[in-house]
Amino acid sequence: MESIKAGILGFGTVGCGTYAVLRRNQEEIRRRAGRGIEITRIAVRSVERARAALDALPRTGAAGTPAAGTPAAGMPAAGTPTIDTDFEGLVADPSIDIVVETIGGTERARELVLAAIAHGKHVVTANKALLAIHGTEIFQAAHARGVMVAFEAAVAGGIPIIKALREGLSGNRIEWIAGIINGTTNFILSEMRDRGVDFATALADAQKLGYAEADPTFDIEGVDAAHKLTLMSAIAFGVPIQFDRAYVEGISRLDAIDLRYAEELGYRIKLLGITRRSADGIELRVHPTLIPSKRLIANVEGAMNAVAVQGDAVGTTLYYGKGAGAEPTASAMVADLVDVTRLHTADPEHRTPHLAFQPDQLSDTPILPIDAIKSAYYLRLRVADVTGVLASIATTLADLGISVDALLQKESREGEGETDLVVLTHITLEGNLRRAIAQIETLETVVSPVTLLRTENL
Amino acid sequence: MESIKAGILGFGTVGCGTYAVLRRNQEEIRRRAGRGIEITRIAVRSVERARAALDALPRTGAAGTPAAGTPAAGMPAAGTPTIDTDFEGLVADPSIDIVVETIGGTERARELVLAAIAHGKHVVTANKALLAIHGTEIFQAAHARGVMVAFEAAVAGGIPIIKALREGLSGNRIEWIAGIINGTTNFILSEMRDRGVDFATALADAQKLGYAEADPTFDIEGVDAAHKLTLMSAIAFGVPIQFDRAYVEGISRLDAIDLRYAEELGYRIKLLGITRRSADGIELRVHPTLIPSKRLIANVEGAMNAVAVQGDAVGTTLYYGKGAGAEPTASAMVADLVDVTRLHTADPEHRTPHLAFQPDQLSDTPILPIDAIKSAYYLRLRVADVTGVLASIATTLADLGISVDALLQKESREGEGETDLVVLTHITLEGNLRRAIAQIETLETVVSPVTLLRTENL
Repeated sequence: MESIKAGILGFGTVGCGTYAVLRRNQEEIRRRAGRGIEITRIAVRSVERARAALDALPRTGAAGTPAAGTPAAGMPAAGTPTIDTDFEGLVADPSIDIVVETIGGTERARELVLAAIAHGKHVVTANKALLAIHGTEIFQAAHARGVMVAFEAAVAGGIPIIKALREGLSGNRIEWIAGIINGTTNFILSEMRDRGVDFATALADAQKLGYAEADPTFDIEGVDAAHKLTLMSAIAFGVPIQFDRAYVEGISRLDAIDLRYAEELGYRIKLLGITRRSADGIELRVHPTLIPSKRLIANVEGAMNAVAVQGDAVGTTLYYGKGAGAEPTASAMVADLVDVTRLHTADPEHRTPHLAFQPDQLSDTPILPIDAIKSAYYLRLRVADVTGVLASIATTLADLGISVDALLQKESREGEGETDLVVLTHITLEGNLRRAIAQIETLETVVSPVTLLRTENL
Repeated sequence: MESIKAGILGFGTVGCGTYAVLRRNQEEIRRRAGRGIEITRIAVRSVERARAALDALPRTGAAGTPAAGTPAAGMPAAGTPTIDTDFEGLVADPSIDIVVETIGGTERARELVLAAIAHGKHVVTANKALLAIHGTEIFQAAHARGVMVAFEAAVAGGIPIIKALREGLSGNRIEWIAGIINGTTNFILSEMRDRGVDFATALADAQKLGYAEADPTFDIEGVDAAHKLTLMSAIAFGVPIQFDRAYVEGISRLDAIDLRYAEELGYRIKLLGITRRSADGIELRVHPTLIPSKRLIANVEGAMNAVAVQGDAVGTTLYYGKGAGAEPTASAMVADLVDVTRLHTADPEHRTPHLAFQPDQLSDTPILPIDAIKSAYYLRLRVADVTGVLASIATTLADLGISVDALLQKESREGEGETDLVVLTHITLEGNLRRAIAQIETLETVVSPVTLLRTENL
């Protein structure tokens, strides 16, 4: 059968990686997809740079390991793609079935993706920001036009978590998802813990090693994680994409001392994206979170990603792997290309909906504001080292119905007269906890603002 | 749209669990699948027992949590299924689209599944033994008839690992899979380690707690794991199902002392199913395996399952969850039912092949005999506590080109004159290692047979 034709918008890390994997594994992909997948056209800003990147790729499969059982030797190489700067021409090209969007950003990418859809092309993309912000519009357009927009690579890189949530767990009422879905921040937190350095030092290291960008804001402030979490939440609960309702708190203000105290209490701090269905609504939040050290997800180190999903039938499942990088992202892009190749001429009824649920049957369950979520908490206070300080704090908490799970009081250094007090609470309403903090901060014996972190017993 | 009709063969743990999940989550499943999935008929040996199991199920969804956004109250309950003992009648029933096989075993299940296929029914099953032994025949029949045989529940219970391998990682050349895919043996090994008990005690505990069957042979001897591994191997590498070529070694002869020595050396022992592609062929083996304690998969405890997959693009991914039980298995069965519902009227070309690769393009790469695999090894010997014993063993290994990675020599107890010696080797050919063992066992200073275990640095 003739190959399916695809074009790539952009030829940076993801675009070039996708091309490389498609070419390297072309014979095995053909045996899986039933036909070849051919990149016939690439649109870029710099043709020279793209040409150089393409020429730098190895010409054959992995040395010495031709696809088993197939005559790799003597196979004609896939034709060389056309490379030009005509993005609009690519998305309108009648010879192309699938548009692979890898330019990033939200405005130009939105225009090109909508144009591709309007021209009846299927779209494969890793662009979480695009879908978290313009997903409703894009998926509606794709639905109306009867084309697919596949985005496995948009969440957790090569881990097939979108497929697991959309299809693999479709028998479940999903109860919650908690994920380490940003490798940059997980690398920084691992560095802070392992080497006892502060945030700024760990960030500088991450930048040196290529784990953080020159402007790391989207990663360290939790925005990237919130984009991914928003997509997973929509798929898990059958609600519209509502990125603007997400609570987003990054790690840039995290104090190294809180990692140490957490450790002493048997916890690790991870930047988690958490979305949970409760009787009142859906929690959608990204923030540094204490997790018991023994949990599998607490032991996900470095730039790795992991997503835990709780379903009513399956219980907890966990998915772990590389969340970024050219090849892991390409792995997800190519899996989507294979899926699209299988289903591109199928009746749309035969395809799983973009966001798992029939688009005309979404739920209006609200996203809860942060004050309305329920969590257990870690509070750190600087207090005067005098009799009665603990009693007054405990009374304040008890009066608001907040019970204490554990306490850590550090010995004050000689002559200092002040000490750190750490309180772990049982689960309570965040609004309630914030009222308690406001009262605690008025106490004369409390000499600093209260540091608040959330804990999850996954 | 009208509901799709399914019938269940058998109504034990899996059959009843599948029915329960379908009913409990029917509204959410309808919002996902685009139409309802209705069980209209059940065939069992004892109608009374099935009726009692069915009556014992809660009549509604999870209390107080109607499917978000849908009018659960006032929905008519799905019709009560017909229950009878007519298995042949069910698989021939023209009103039924999908047959759910949950009777287990390989002979009667084979006949019924083939009959269902011959009648044009799609099949959903959790029966790994059936597919590991008769899979080639069954998938050929299904392919010829244009129907689907879905078996997500056959491997690792509720973990969607079949979907991950078949679809989620389809861009990769899979290099290896290593899985804890039998909960019974993982529970026993966890007990042996945590409580320092021997195999027989841990097995008795597992039986008391319902983690092991009265006749535990299939689980403890590794047969169940080998069934599952064989299916994953075929999907990963595009080779035929070849259960008879699998090397299978269980945990019943595992000595508690090896768990302790492994621990001292920084390893845990797990029953792993390993399948790996090498230049010479495919390794397909189940055996107790030492894994460095820090690895995520080494920390999978109790009856949990986990599968690590190495792909050339994605790197290592890991999938973790409950590998057995009514509800986790039902989670996978219902996911398959949703998939089949989506695709049951589709052109077969739009469906992913049963074993991931086009059935006419399978590879003839051979499965390697155990002597031809490559691994690192753990050897335990009882040796006379005399000068030169270590040198003679080291010389024997060196002469065969086997290099030593670590050594553990225990102090001999007073007056005993003998001591345990543990050797960890670097990677070598197993045939080579066995030659070395044969020579070592002829040494006068070696007073017991050599215990051999394999190690994996996953």
